Amino acid sequence: MPKISQKGYDMPASPIRKLTPYAESAKQKGKKVYHLNIGQPDIETPKGMIDAIKSINFKVWAYTPSEGILSYRNKLAQHYNRINYNITPNDILVTNGASEAITIAMQTCLNSGDEIIIPEPFYANYSGFACMANIVVKPLLSVMNDNFALPSIAEFEKVITDKTKAIFICNPNNPTGYLYSKEELESLRDLCLKYDLFLFSDEAYREFCYDDREFISPLNLSGFDDNVVIIDSVSKRYSACGARLGCLITKNKAIYKAALKFAQARLSAPLVAQIAGEAALDTPDSYFIEVKKEYTQRRDLLANGLNKIPGVRCSVPGGAFYILAELPVNDTEKFCQWMLEEFDYNNETVMMAPASGFYSTPGMGKNEVRLAYVINQDDLKKALICLENGLIAYNSSARD
Amino acid sequence: MPKISQKGYDMPASPIRKLTPYAESAKQKGKKVYHLNIGQPDIETPKGMIDAIKSINFKVWAYTPSEGILSYRNKLAQHYNRINYNITPNDILVTNGASEAITIAMQTCLNSGDEIIIPEPFYANYSGFACMANIVVKPLLSVMNDNFALPSIAEFEKVITDKTKAIFICNPNNPTGYLYSKEELESLRDLCLKYDLFLFSDEAYREFCYDDREFISPLNLSGFDDNVVIIDSVSKRYSACGARLGCLITKNKAIYKAALKFAQARLSAPLVAQIAGEAALDTPDSYFIEVKKEYTQRRDLLANGLNKIPGVRCSVPGGAFYILAELPVNDTEKFCQWMLEEFDYNNETVMMAPASGFYSTPGMGKNEVRLAYVINQDDLKKALICLENGLIAYNSSARD
Repeated sequence: MPKISQKGYDMPASPIRKLTPYAESAKQKGKKVYHLNIGQPDIETPKGMIDAIKSINFKVWAYTPSEGILSYRNKLAQHYNRINYNITPNDILVTNGASEAITIAMQTCLNSGDEIIIPEPFYANYSGFACMANIVVKPLLSVMNDNFALPSIAEFEKVITDKTKAIFICNPNNPTGYLYSKEELESLRDLCLKYDLFLFSDEAYREFCYDDREFISPLNLSGFDDNVVIIDSVSKRYSACGARLGCLITKNKAIYKAALKFAQARLSAPLVAQIAGEAALDTPDSYFIEVKKEYTQRRDLLANGLNKIPGVRCSVPGGAFYILAELPVNDTEKFCQWMLEEFDYNNETVMMAPASGFYSTPGMGKNEVRLAYVINQDDLKKALICLENGLIAYNSSARD
Repeated sequence: MPKISQKGYDMPASPIRKLTPYAESAKQKGKKVYHLNIGQPDIETPKGMIDAIKSINFKVWAYTPSEGILSYRNKLAQHYNRINYNITPNDILVTNGASEAITIAMQTCLNSGDEIIIPEPFYANYSGFACMANIVVKPLLSVMNDNFALPSIAEFEKVITDKTKAIFICNPNNPTGYLYSKEELESLRDLCLKYDLFLFSDEAYREFCYDDREFISPLNLSGFDDNVVIIDSVSKRYSACGARLGCLITKNKAIYKAALKFAQARLSAPLVAQIAGEAALDTPDSYFIEVKKEYTQRRDLLANGLNKIPGVRCSVPGGAFYILAELPVNDTEKFCQWMLEEFDYNNETVMMAPASGFYSTPGMGKNEVRLAYVINQDDLKKALICLENGLIAYNSSARD
């Protein structure tokens, strides 16, 4: 029997999904599981998107252009230009979710063995995409005591080598919720210009900035357009994760030309999603005002609730809808599995994502979890009670 | 300005899409372009699929399980078991089109630098997916005089090295239309067992076998289940290319386990496509009988028409919906571009895929094109007239 590839073994398992079998088995036993493990909001998808799906009027479910439907890209460009990205439809490549946009950005800009610097903790699947492209991730630690702010430029300079080709940020950050300031982005720009590096900016959570904080994109800064690749997605913005629709934006023509070849190899992004994505751009502002209000309340509820649990600690996110929390256990992977397998409180339990998978440095984040505040406030309260009681039960039996 | 990756330069441009800008510009000048370049059928998608899209009743457009919705995989397994694949739903991984299934199969089974043997000409994008995974394609020539039958096992053995990890076939074949016999598949099985190789079988055109010929899958043979990975797609079967829905099938648990990690990294295949894909499995047999009849007529019309044009030669395909044809020109890439840029016949022209991109051996296929018989018979006839007149005009002006 032939052996699978070493890469097949090395590919990291997603901390977001890897405990799924335990959750399934808990549900089969009749337990209710609160899913804080995955950024799957319960927020309703805008009616305009759903209506667009129901109103499709094609007879042949055909490929779209590899770069995306022109009318969709036109409208996307207008959308981005309202927030001063100053782009044309030809700077946008429509992709199968942000996931594919990241894969294409990595493949287009980095060779096998090249290095990419990512402040950690970072969205776990970046490791998987880097593994696929044989790219080496160089993590730079951001810390809870500093709200997970950008590591200092001096720290970046320490890890830059001849092999360094790019820096990758997620803003607002998944999993930390940190929102990068204009000053931080300017310092990244200067660094990228100094060392001739690309800056990848994953902006899937752009609309979710709280407490009236301002979102700044690298494309809002002047003087380094050729260095910048923006990764975007409709998944979170419109609560449309199942659409699998994202895009890559770059004003660097060499990147775009190469990226288009990768897109042409897989022919097309999904047609129905693009039709709905175009309709989504007409979503009224009131939708986002409501959603942001709801997420703000959930954030406050979850952050306050967590900080009240003995031994639990977290910072208050400025954006996105995740909280990275320290728990009073030695190994959250064991604890999260135990919560699904062994524990219940009134026949309910919580699924969380162990945070070690969000760190690239071995051993980091072992006492942390990522929690997504994507369920309603009543359920969030119940999940907090489950977690508090779970921690008591787990620690009183000295399982860890 | 930072440089893009070498891979960004090396990534082959898809011969199916690369002339698109010339076609667009021809259309802008008011020319009608017959698209024989791409396997985008004009056949209507089954009504059951379209109705399933229009009848969606979710309020949150959510992720699905990374491996695909269970009810869809259950029904898929039943579908495959009717043609004796003898699989379970847990052998099926639902993907973003066959494209992603190929990428995952390659990444899971082959390391960087490993070799995969593919009879050429082969579906051009295999080269792109191999490039992404740093896999070396070892082509083995199949020839028109032999209807593009499988090269002899002795030829395979000549190119097998320590680095060879897999053989990749497309059956029925894109671009040649060749349908592999049971004997050919058995000889591949014996070869894979002898050298411990994986066999990837792309079966996107399974339903399109003509003249009552029988389709045989490696999964219909006994004794090498662990070697086999099937690639499948709803694109052609249901004329649903824009769904971006495929799957990877393997009974090899180690492959499946690793492939699932790649699938979990990108979280989900599209939800609406999976709902429609499940409905598609109820498509009545009458649909396929009609479609097959139509494709058979188109095949006969195109093959006969091509063979009547002076200097043009092709074999008659046993399956799929492509014909690889020799044209009396030295460089079909130039000719195909000229047909779009310079030529028209009654303000009409034809877009074809230059065949050199379907060969991995440099210089091969330069006088060949791939034509997809995916347009109606009246239009096919007009396309043939365009092509005949285009060849006369091109050659009389000695442009080549």
